[in-house]
Amino acid sequence: MKDASRGIASQRRHRPQAEGRIARCMPRLRIVFDGQPRRLGPGKIELLEAVGETGSISGAGRRLGMSYRRAQLLVDEVNKIFVRPAVVTSAGGPDGDGAVLTEFGRALVAAYRRIEERTAIAIREELAPFERDLADP
Amino acid sequence: MKDASRGIASQRRHRPQAEGRIARCMPRLRIVFDGQPRRLGPGKIELLEAVGETGSISGAGRRLGMSYRRAQLLVDEVNKIFVRPAVVTSAGGPDGDGAVLTEFGRALVAAYRRIEERTAIAIREELAPFERDLADP
Repeated sequence: MKDASRGIASQRRHRPQAEGRIARCMPRLRIVFDGQPRRLGPGKIELLEAVGETGSISGAGRRLGMSYRRAQLLVDEVNKIFVRPAVVTSAGGPDGDGAVLTEFGRALVAAYRRIEERTAIAIREELAPFERDLADP
Repeated sequence: MKDASRGIASQRRHRPQAEGRIARCMPRLRIVFDGQPRRLGPGKIELLEAVGETGSISGAGRRLGMSYRRAQLLVDEVNKIFVRPAVVTSAGGPDGDGAVLTEFGRALVAAYRRIEERTAIAIREELAPFERDLADP
């Protein structure tokens, strides 16, 4: 996880009270959309969050350590999954490539984070019986 | 999913309102274990299931279209995550490399499948508002 996720993600993923190691197991989740080759996973979600926070695709890319080209490609992929854009661009902004996470984009990110949190809870509950089975790192 | 579900799926496609496309979105889930570089995802789980069904690592590898070497590597990785083995091998079996999915291995696979199902339910529920936002494939 890079800086971008620390804002929203770390608040949501509050450390569980339980001290067990299973309680610290985390999901890494991709959503496969019906009839779509494109997937929505943690990398694209972090990127959308970073666009929302930096106000540009290049700024988001820099924050996540990826090239502008790569960041633009991933944003395009997300926008192609849906009929409404998650990110819209404009000529403004400090880098001349201002980008805005739309209301739809924000709702999508929030839904993904809720799914992720529910999965984390499922992991903790279903793997609890294996607490003593985890090998030392 | 095999042939049985293909019938159902294509029937659904002719009746788009009967069950929405969001309902057919699927998770692709990896579990990141605390302090472990190794992850447990759909490929390893399928492999464990195939070992349980074929009774050998080479048979499981063949079924999944992977080399024996690759199948053995993945089984070893799973066994290193835990202090108890998910798969044990013996000299017997039709290929001379008999392998058994242990009771622990079966419990682990079952837990993963339950987590996956709970995630699928979370996806359906949390993404339901976006039913009309999915682009055509």
